[in-house]
Amino acid sequence: MDSVGKSWLLLTGFVLFYVIYLLFGALVFSSIERPVEDKLRHDMEVLKQDFLNQSCVNAASLERFLVQVLTANKYGVSVLRNSSFTSNWDLASSMFFANTLVTTVGYGHTTPLSDTGKAFSIFYALIGVPFTMLVLTASVQRLMHPLVIVPIGLLQRSGMAPRWATVVHLVLLLVLVVLCFFLAPAAVFSVLEGSWSFLDGIYFCFISLCTIGLGDFVPGTQSGQKNRQLYQLAVMAYLFLGLMMMYLLLRTFHKMSDLHGLTGFLQLPRCEESDPEEDREPILEDNQMGKAASEPLEPASQPSYNTINKG
Amino acid sequence: MDSVGKSWLLLTGFVLFYVIYLLFGALVFSSIERPVEDKLRHDMEVLKQDFLNQSCVNAASLERFLVQVLTANKYGVSVLRNSSFTSNWDLASSMFFANTLVTTVGYGHTTPLSDTGKAFSIFYALIGVPFTMLVLTASVQRLMHPLVIVPIGLLQRSGMAPRWATVVHLVLLLVLVVLCFFLAPAAVFSVLEGSWSFLDGIYFCFISLCTIGLGDFVPGTQSGQKNRQLYQLAVMAYLFLGLMMMYLLLRTFHKMSDLHGLTGFLQLPRCEESDPEEDREPILEDNQMGKAASEPLEPASQPSYNTINKG
Repeated sequence: MDSVGKSWLLLTGFVLFYVIYLLFGALVFSSIERPVEDKLRHDMEVLKQDFLNQSCVNAASLERFLVQVLTANKYGVSVLRNSSFTSNWDLASSMFFANTLVTTVGYGHTTPLSDTGKAFSIFYALIGVPFTMLVLTASVQRLMHPLVIVPIGLLQRSGMAPRWATVVHLVLLLVLVVLCFFLAPAAVFSVLEGSWSFLDGIYFCFISLCTIGLGDFVPGTQSGQKNRQLYQLAVMAYLFLGLMMMYLLLRTFHKMSDLHGLTGFLQLPRCEESDPEEDREPILEDNQMGKAASEPLEPASQPSYNTINKG
Repeated sequence: MDSVGKSWLLLTGFVLFYVIYLLFGALVFSSIERPVEDKLRHDMEVLKQDFLNQSCVNAASLERFLVQVLTANKYGVSVLRNSSFTSNWDLASSMFFANTLVTTVGYGHTTPLSDTGKAFSIFYALIGVPFTMLVLTASVQRLMHPLVIVPIGLLQRSGMAPRWATVVHLVLLLVLVVLCFFLAPAAVFSVLEGSWSFLDGIYFCFISLCTIGLGDFVPGTQSGQKNRQLYQLAVMAYLFLGLMMMYLLLRTFHKMSDLHGLTGFLQLPRCEESDPEEDREPILEDNQMGKAASEPLEPASQPSYNTINKG
C-alpha cells in the first residue's frame, strides 16, 4: 500500500478508536454515576415532599432546604418537577460528557457525583485529551491539501502574487468558517432551543469552539427536548468538526505568519513543514517563494535559525 | 542589544501586557455585570421574603419559586443568606473570570448575565485567547533552555546514551510537575477549602490544567473565605504557571517523539526546531543524534519528508 493509502487507513483507525473510546467512556460513566444520581434524585423528592408537608415554613427551614437544593443542582440534579424524567447519565448524555472531557471544552453542566467518577474522569482525560489532540492533528493534516494547498494554488494560477494569495485564502477560509460554524449553527440553535436568542447561539458556538465551555448554554438540556439523544450526537459531531476547522485556521494563520516574517519577528517556533502530502505540492508554487515559506524572510537578522534542520 | 536580550524584553512586554489585559477585562466585566448582579440579588431577596410571607406553601408556588432560584443560581447569584455578601463581579472575581476566559479553562461558576456581557466575552476572548497562547509559547521557549536542554546535556555528560537521556529527563520532568503542580497544590487546596478532600484537590488541579474546567470545584468561592481576593490572585498565578509547565511537558514529549521516530510513525508534523537559543545548543550534544532529532529515524520509509526545508 502506498504512503497516502496508509496515512488514510491510520486516520480511519484513529477516528474509529475515538468513537469506541467515547462509547467506552459513556458506558463506564453511566454505570458509575447513574445509581448515585438516582439516589440523589430520590432523596431530593423526599426532601421536597417533607418541606411541603411542614405546617409552617420559616426562614431557617427554607435556608436548610435551599442549601440541599443548590448542592444537588450543582451536580446536575434538579428538584423541578418537569426535569425529573431525563437523566444526566443515560448513554447519550454520558457520551456527551465524555466528549466534553476529551475535547477540553468541559461545560460542567453535569459533573461526576462520586469519588469513583472523579477518579475515572482523571484517568479518562489523561488518555483521552492527548489522543483527541492526535486525531484532530491527523484530520487537519489531511484537510490541508484540499482546503489550503489547492485553493492557494488556484489563486496563484489566476495571476495573484504568492503573498497575496495566502492572505486572500486566509480571509476566504475565515469567512467560510464563520458562516458554517458560527452563524449557521447559531441560527439552528436559536430555533431548536426555545429560550436562546441568536446572540446566545453565537455565544455558545464561540465559547465552545474556543474550548472555554462555560456551560451556561448547553444544547439538549431543556426539558421536553424532542429526539434529545440524536440531538446530542449531532452537537458532538458539530463540536468535533468545529474544533478541526479552528485548528485548521490556526495552522493556516501560522503558515501565513511564517511566510510574512511575523513568526520570526515574535521569535516564536515556526510552523512545522513535514507533512508528506504537503511536501509533494508546496504551499506556494513559485519556487523562490516555496523556499521563503520554510525560511524567515530576513535570514540575516536570525543567523542561527534552522541550524539543526540543516545540520 | 543582542538577540537574547531583545527576546527577554519581548517576553517581559508580553507578560506585562497580559496582566494589563486581565485588569482591563476585570474593569469592563465588573462595570457591565455588577449592576445586573445587584438587581438580580435584590430581586431574589424580595422573592424569598414574599415566599416566606405566604400563608401556605403549596407545590405550585414552591415550583415557581425554585425555578427562579435555580435560574439565578445558574448566573452565580445564590439566595442563601451567607453568600449574599460577596459579589461575583468585584475586581478580583472579574479578573479571575477574565483569566478563565483567556486560558480557555472556563469554569463557568459565574457567567455573564447581560447580553452586553456575553458580547464582550466573545470580543475579549477573540483577542485574549490567541494572545495568551502567544505569551505561554514565548514563556515556554525561554524555559526550554534551563529545564530541557541543560538537564539533558548534564545527563549525557554523566555518560548516558543520548536516547536514554531524553527519556530519563522526561520522566524526571514529569515527576517534578506532578509533585509541584498536582500533589502539593492539592494538599494546599484541601487545607484552605474546608469541604475539599485531597482527591477533590487533585481532581481540581487536573481538570484545570487540562483546560477542561468543569467548575464543580473552584477555589475561593466558599462563603467566609479569608483574604479571598489575594487567594484568587494566587490561584490565577498557579493556573498560568501550571499551564506553562503542561505546555513545556507537551513540547518535551513531542521533541522526544521526534527523536524516537514516533512522530514519523504516526505521520504527524514534527516538533518545530527553530528557536534561536535552542539552535545555539542542540537538544542532543552528540552530532549524529542532533541530526537524528531533525530527521525521522527511518528516512527511507518517508522519502519525501522535509523536501521543503531542504529545497
